[in-house]
Amino acid sequence: MKTLFKNCDIIATENGDFKVIKDGYLAVDGAFISYVGKSRPEGEFDAERDMSRHVLAPGLINCHCHSAMTLLRGVGSDLPLQKWLFDAVFPIEDRLTAKQVRTGSELAMLEMLSTGTTSFSDMYQDSRETIEAAIEAGMKANIHVPVLSFDPNESYADNVRAQNSLALAREFSNAAGGRVRAQFCVHAEYTCNEKIVRAYAEDCLKYGSMMHIHLSETKSEHDECVKKYGKTPAQWFKSLGAFDVPSSAAHCVWATPEDIDIFAENGVTVVHNPTSNLKLGSGIAPVSEMLKRGVNVTLGTDGAASNNNLNMFEEMHLAALIHKGFRCDPTIMTPHQILKMATVNGALQQGRADTGSLEAGKRADIIAISLDRPHMYPAFDDINMLIYSAQGGDVTMTMVDGRVLYENGEFKTIDAERVMFDARRAVSELYEG
Amino acid sequence: MKTLFKNCDIIATENGDFKVIKDGYLAVDGAFISYVGKSRPEGEFDAERDMSRHVLAPGLINCHCHSAMTLLRGVGSDLPLQKWLFDAVFPIEDRLTAKQVRTGSELAMLEMLSTGTTSFSDMYQDSRETIEAAIEAGMKANIHVPVLSFDPNESYADNVRAQNSLALAREFSNAAGGRVRAQFCVHAEYTCNEKIVRAYAEDCLKYGSMMHIHLSETKSEHDECVKKYGKTPAQWFKSLGAFDVPSSAAHCVWATPEDIDIFAENGVTVVHNPTSNLKLGSGIAPVSEMLKRGVNVTLGTDGAASNNNLNMFEEMHLAALIHKGFRCDPTIMTPHQILKMATVNGALQQGRADTGSLEAGKRADIIAISLDRPHMYPAFDDINMLIYSAQGGDVTMTMVDGRVLYENGEFKTIDAERVMFDARRAVSELYEG
Repeated sequence: MKTLFKNCDIIATENGDFKVIKDGYLAVDGAFISYVGKSRPEGEFDAERDMSRHVLAPGLINCHCHSAMTLLRGVGSDLPLQKWLFDAVFPIEDRLTAKQVRTGSELAMLEMLSTGTTSFSDMYQDSRETIEAAIEAGMKANIHVPVLSFDPNESYADNVRAQNSLALAREFSNAAGGRVRAQFCVHAEYTCNEKIVRAYAEDCLKYGSMMHIHLSETKSEHDECVKKYGKTPAQWFKSLGAFDVPSSAAHCVWATPEDIDIFAENGVTVVHNPTSNLKLGSGIAPVSEMLKRGVNVTLGTDGAASNNNLNMFEEMHLAALIHKGFRCDPTIMTPHQILKMATVNGALQQGRADTGSLEAGKRADIIAISLDRPHMYPAFDDINMLIYSAQGGDVTMTMVDGRVLYENGEFKTIDAERVMFDARRAVSELYEG
Repeated sequence: MKTLFKNCDIIATENGDFKVIKDGYLAVDGAFISYVGKSRPEGEFDAERDMSRHVLAPGLINCHCHSAMTLLRGVGSDLPLQKWLFDAVFPIEDRLTAKQVRTGSELAMLEMLSTGTTSFSDMYQDSRETIEAAIEAGMKANIHVPVLSFDPNESYADNVRAQNSLALAREFSNAAGGRVRAQFCVHAEYTCNEKIVRAYAEDCLKYGSMMHIHLSETKSEHDECVKKYGKTPAQWFKSLGAFDVPSSAAHCVWATPEDIDIFAENGVTVVHNPTSNLKLGSGIAPVSEMLKRGVNVTLGTDGAASNNNLNMFEEMHLAALIHKGFRCDPTIMTPHQILKMATVNGALQQGRADTGSLEAGKRADIIAISLDRPHMYPAFDDINMLIYSAQGGDVTMTMVDGRVLYENGEFKTIDAERVMFDARRAVSELYEG
């Protein structure tokens, strides 16, 4: 199947940087982009699509998410993190069935697809359901299966979750032709002991996988770790081998300059989660310092319970705004940098060098955004408009590997009616039952 | 015309506080709300509308806006305020024709109506065009006609703009049955001399009007005023009589505790503009202190050139998030407080006691928001969902004085096609001509 998109603005990439093409052409051949340019490419096409008053952009990559938590959207709102987590969230999660995790994950994918996310990095208990849902939905996903241990003396072999996670990471390491990949994850310093972190990191290295961690999300987490181990969380994880593999650290709100050096020197991707960090009162991560130091900074929504959305347009918008206001410097971060965080930097986090940009030869992970709405007039600078003006709801098409998964309110691979029915039932079981 | 909305959640008001009614009824009789309740009201209706999976909420009130600036959306993005204003914005505004101001204002109203704003407080040169556009569009508006003077010795009588503004404020003080009201405005301390402020404030008092001012938006503005006059901008304006009338101060980012006392003691409404203050790097206003002190805090979008949108859902969302993150306190502000800022507090700012809440006897300024979208599941707490989850694009209906002005993408009083055509032409004239 060869498709030609015509008459559209395109956020293309040329020599490693964005280049906006006005009124251009983009051709898709099967799962790949075959042409991007100002003039019409040669050859015949099975379909030609007029995309006047639309922008084509690379699919957005949500680099830190707990998709099943859509069923906990808004739970424990406006509580401090530890209280929110231990008093509001954990008791409900203890009751979640596999079927409910499946429903929550599917609901998450509806939301992500309808707001332009083509790939996500997830972390959740019972990851099997999320893995299978992602395979069926046609989305890309790195599903990080977590270990937790509240017993300081427990061994790796005795930790049932760790063993299950290991098995899952091996079984689905390269599912659906690599589109869905189960990988490693340590929930956080405060929920795991040293022995298990070290052993799990060794297995991660052994199986050639990737690691994902919550790190220095709150000041108390950061300070308690220093008190307990004499090390910051970044130093602690580094000492246990967690950064000997390609790894991501989510949040890093309280990362010190020395921690930022560790990220830079060890190629650790930082996932910035602006909404969640603000909503839980965790703070504002030193993102501009990380960018200056050359750290690969990406964006994530975190779970719906602390956001309340899985909408990358909101994260881009917030990331573009809050650091300017917090530091009183409107030049501290550019829309270009923000869009990179949400696309090409995300592709690097996920180890997917064939995604994240619109260039011939890359996989066709493409979204279309309407410019034909009052708030999108005028559009001098399309990247500026995507970051500062667009809503998630302005996305009109989401394509993964050349396959349209969402278009104009219609989902092609997920039965949205059924998922919403299941979601209503799950909620009534969980909260009213 | 009597209309009954049924099967909807309603953000009603009871005894001065919000009360969410699940699966309730709201009746509109002409321009007014005649019933709000859980059970079906008696009587016959000309129309019954099933609003299943929708929330009805009070229309949002955008308390600080420069509507015509939609034609400057994104202009000078990522520049510091003074550079943005003097180098990027003012030169374009000098070229703006009355026709272009009209087009920009109409484009603004399309955006506001489609994102749930029923009333706005505007400030712009050539306000006549905005006034006439608001009258025709059916929206509510307080249009503050500004004075500026860059000559420190100029008198009130010699300032042509002041005299024109005065004439306009008198001509349209109560247009369209009070739906559109032209009122007074001093642009800012740094753009006006003492004599003119004092004389214009005296006329404002004499004609029983209201005042609107930019105040302590940036640190340099605040500090320069202290250096020049030995007074903060709030102290300066108070000394000149600007707070002897019902008045609003926009921004107040650098307001001191003593300034906040002045606002509280003089009934000055503060308009918080979170997006604009962040984007221009102005800073983060001490809103929680203002609320504690009992100041009437409202929300505004500011102009599209520094936002880039006129979308009150974004302002509510940001206001709910940024203070929590900045102060590391998730309990600092509640969704209830935020929704009040955007509705009932706005009605107070505008001097419209018959709007701002859904109660029998109030004017029917009502918006409907769809809950039937993936990101709106589950909806435990409708107010929480409106603040943290909803996008402007989730608004399905906007009604002013019982008249539907927008519904499901259709505008009933503005020819959207024509406005967008005019906007394209205006942009090409302004920037390419």
